[in-house]
Amino acid sequence: MQTFYSDIHRQHHGRTELYAGTLVPCFEMPARADMVLDRVRATGLGEVCPPSAHGLDPVLAVHDAGYVAFLQSAWQRWQALGRDYDALPKMWQIRRLRQALPEHVEGQLCYYSMDCGTPITAGTWAAISAGADVALSAADALIGGQKGAFALTRPPGHHAARDYCGGYCFFNNAAIAAQHLRANGAKRVALLDVDYHHGNGTQDIFYQRDDVLFLSIHGHPRTEYPFFLGFADECGEGAGLGYNVNYPLPAGSTVDTWFDALAQACGRIAHFAPDALVVSLGVDAYQGDPISRFALSSDDFLRMGERLGRLGLPAVFCLEGGYAVEPIGINAVNVLSAFESSV
Amino acid sequence: MQTFYSDIHRQHHGRTELYAGTLVPCFEMPARADMVLDRVRATGLGEVCPPSAHGLDPVLAVHDAGYVAFLQSAWQRWQALGRDYDALPKMWQIRRLRQALPEHVEGQLCYYSMDCGTPITAGTWAAISAGADVALSAADALIGGQKGAFALTRPPGHHAARDYCGGYCFFNNAAIAAQHLRANGAKRVALLDVDYHHGNGTQDIFYQRDDVLFLSIHGHPRTEYPFFLGFADECGEGAGLGYNVNYPLPAGSTVDTWFDALAQACGRIAHFAPDALVVSLGVDAYQGDPISRFALSSDDFLRMGERLGRLGLPAVFCLEGGYAVEPIGINAVNVLSAFESSV
Repeated sequence: MQTFYSDIHRQHHGRTELYAGTLVPCFEMPARADMVLDRVRATGLGEVCPPSAHGLDPVLAVHDAGYVAFLQSAWQRWQALGRDYDALPKMWQIRRLRQALPEHVEGQLCYYSMDCGTPITAGTWAAISAGADVALSAADALIGGQKGAFALTRPPGHHAARDYCGGYCFFNNAAIAAQHLRANGAKRVALLDVDYHHGNGTQDIFYQRDDVLFLSIHGHPRTEYPFFLGFADECGEGAGLGYNVNYPLPAGSTVDTWFDALAQACGRIAHFAPDALVVSLGVDAYQGDPISRFALSSDDFLRMGERLGRLGLPAVFCLEGGYAVEPIGINAVNVLSAFESSV
Repeated sequence: MQTFYSDIHRQHHGRTELYAGTLVPCFEMPARADMVLDRVRATGLGEVCPPSAHGLDPVLAVHDAGYVAFLQSAWQRWQALGRDYDALPKMWQIRRLRQALPEHVEGQLCYYSMDCGTPITAGTWAAISAGADVALSAADALIGGQKGAFALTRPPGHHAARDYCGGYCFFNNAAIAAQHLRANGAKRVALLDVDYHHGNGTQDIFYQRDDVLFLSIHGHPRTEYPFFLGFADECGEGAGLGYNVNYPLPAGSTVDTWFDALAQACGRIAHFAPDALVVSLGVDAYQGDPISRFALSSDDFLRMGERLGRLGLPAVFCLEGGYAVEPIGINAVNVLSAFESSV
């Protein structure tokens, strides 16, 4: 399986995020990609390829133009205020506050963000643009006939919605890949999110569509981030009704419970009969993850890849979360190699 | 004029707030009240009285019961997680995220907060409960026949809505006082907010009511915090239509512009013919305020008090913002003494 990768991800390296009432070093850091890339090479998974440039049109196919323009200029505008820390928003328009885009960059940052964990830095735009190209190039590999491709994306993408960032995510790489597959011959695409945290952004993007089936297995939002989306009764709306499937599992769920949900998800995918699969590959369901509470072992990630391979679908895997830095390479590549052996 | 004051405000002393991308010492600090109290005493404004206990019923008359219960237990629940920093929320349910109250204290903190500048500390509940009693006791002075009373409240209140905190505010002291006046004989109450920042919380509380006229003169939300409320076209709804009046002024407006807005507000108040006035007395329209951009001098605060006195209405003044710590005593007491001389 080819891995698509760009070193430009390194340019996004936030200093701090708000966690437990204070600022801590960002959990989402460049070393995460290094660990995964090292493991790809060590295991001989396949060629590591640079992405090809796709421009912004495929990004604008899933994201709001105002949001994209904001991300492109945010750092320069923030810096022009004389600020030397990463840009973090400080307030939000909840409930009866008004949905109006302010003029000031600080207000716009608040408008376009859902949390305080997603700093915009000098290199964010370069990194997320390269990340979109990585996801698109992996999708191209499928379009070209490959059975699987790995988009080694960083920062991750699945919390990014049409018009807001959050959860370390800016561009929704998996959604961009899925849309690109749709635009290039795939009539139906299934997008499965196995990250510990609900893929609220991806759900948001495809919620009213029946051509992209979104499924997510994740910690229950009643106690787990992102708290405000990912419940079982969110089934899509309009044409999308029935094409959004959440499997919220209580924090602390067993491995068996997790694989029961995966079996259900695979059944639903098979019934949908898509032309391709996109996997939001977070590996923070791992037992050692510092900010998650599932119990999968590294061997369980082999089992995950094998089960996905048995779907018999060509698949793009986009790296999402996973914060136990050392083992994330092992866990991510376990999924990929087992998939490749069984597809 | 009597000043109502409780030393218990001191128990709320947040360490840090998110500002310009990093955590800085809270602008809203106990020394603010000290400066004002010192000035009250130095000028001989009048007796300084302790508040009397009113219980939670008057608080629950303007705030959501779930929100109040959350504030009462939040610090203990946060601490039970082993966290030693003040409680600050990290994400928010914006736009298409779901309006569901999570079970986890962190999720509830996110649900009940609009910003990252309003830490909940070990002493927050005691301080805000005492603050509500201070506001209620000042209202009692009016009910007892006084022409003016000063509620030296801290933390401030005007950003606190029915069911969320923010902008350093938890209980909306001015709204609690206004409601208490209504419950004790006043048929109509005008509530004028002269803080630099829009009183979004007060607007929220009375938006559908015609018995409390809310008016606010503030920095325009298109560039100023709180960004998402305070526009001129917010006029109330239902029975409240026409009873919410915003005067958003561009950041950097002149003193003349400010007093033009005050003249308009006073005209509107006179037309409403209320039985009493509540003033949300922020003094951050001051030219030296570190986080605001109006240009009032200390003498202009005398002029403000004089103009309010000419309304001929009994008035409760509740301290709100003002962060140029040294001059806030002079500026606040200038309003009060000039009011008393001219009422």
